[in-house]
Amino acid sequence: MPPITALKILGLDPGLAHTGWGLIVVQGNAHQLIAAGRVSTKTETPMPQRLAQLAEGLAHVIRTHQPHVAAVEEVYVNKNPQSTLKLGQARAISLLVPQQHGLMVHEYAARLVKQSLTGKGNAEKTQVQHMVAVLLGASVAATVGKLPADAADALAVALTHAHHAGMAKRMAKPSIIG
Amino acid sequence: MPPITALKILGLDPGLAHTGWGLIVVQGNAHQLIAAGRVSTKTETPMPQRLAQLAEGLAHVIRTHQPHVAAVEEVYVNKNPQSTLKLGQARAISLLVPQQHGLMVHEYAARLVKQSLTGKGNAEKTQVQHMVAVLLGASVAATVGKLPADAADALAVALTHAHHAGMAKRMAKPSIIG
Repeated sequence: MPPITALKILGLDPGLAHTGWGLIVVQGNAHQLIAAGRVSTKTETPMPQRLAQLAEGLAHVIRTHQPHVAAVEEVYVNKNPQSTLKLGQARAISLLVPQQHGLMVHEYAARLVKQSLTGKGNAEKTQVQHMVAVLLGASVAATVGKLPADAADALAVALTHAHHAGMAKRMAKPSIIG
Repeated sequence: MPPITALKILGLDPGLAHTGWGLIVVQGNAHQLIAAGRVSTKTETPMPQRLAQLAEGLAHVIRTHQPHVAAVEEVYVNKNPQSTLKLGQARAISLLVPQQHGLMVHEYAARLVKQSLTGKGNAEKTQVQHMVAVLLGASVAATVGKLPADAADALAVALTHAHHAGMAKRMAKPSIIG
């Protein structure tokens, strides 16, 4: 059997005030937390600078941790058009920067993230965060509990990608079990 | 009297399918067309790549022409939230790339652009394009007529900035006339 290669996944939860990021490494069915955090900008900073700060923050994470692939949470379309416009701007940075660093970028709807982690598309945020801690192992559960919500959400997207990438691989190369 | 320094302005009209750009140089009351065009992306290209193509196209324009300042048309908020989200993404690139190249970035609402060029905030697009040609001189009028609408709109934003920057300067340093 060939050795199972480790896949380093960068999860991103886009937002203008806070873009959450989380890095996990996946080897077979085992997931491990590498690092997580968020890039923040201030409301009073002019928009072009806020976007540049988000871009520079994400570029720094990518340069530091060298992930293989990025998974981005598809942003909600807000009822307020001005909020939707802002979300669109933040989302652009989360899609652009990994692409500019040569990563494949996958998008996952919030509903799919919830479904993948909890089996329920409309699960509560706290339930998702609980499952993030469970999937990353008891030793980091305390850490995940202390993370900002954006960072925990980013880890949830990374785990969703791990799940789907694993599924796709198994479906592409069926193996005989037993 | 000190020599009047020339100001090179990059105007941008953000759009995901086509982002228009136009460069003018302003010296006193004289405006001159340097170049104009648009960066285009295809609908079937994945979003992260489309955004990277827009970013690379605008970066190329800035490296080639070395403008001093950027003026971006504030995008309309569309009735369709998905369209607004896409516009937000395209707008992010037009705000980000000049900022990353050290340019000051100014935004002008479409209404203000129309008002500045024609004296009417709800002027027809063709009237705005006519005034772009007039302001840039008869010799380039034919050229402007042949430009894609996005590029002509980008020139209109650049001219709006020239107008407002000139006004601000005159108001900051009043001079005695006569």
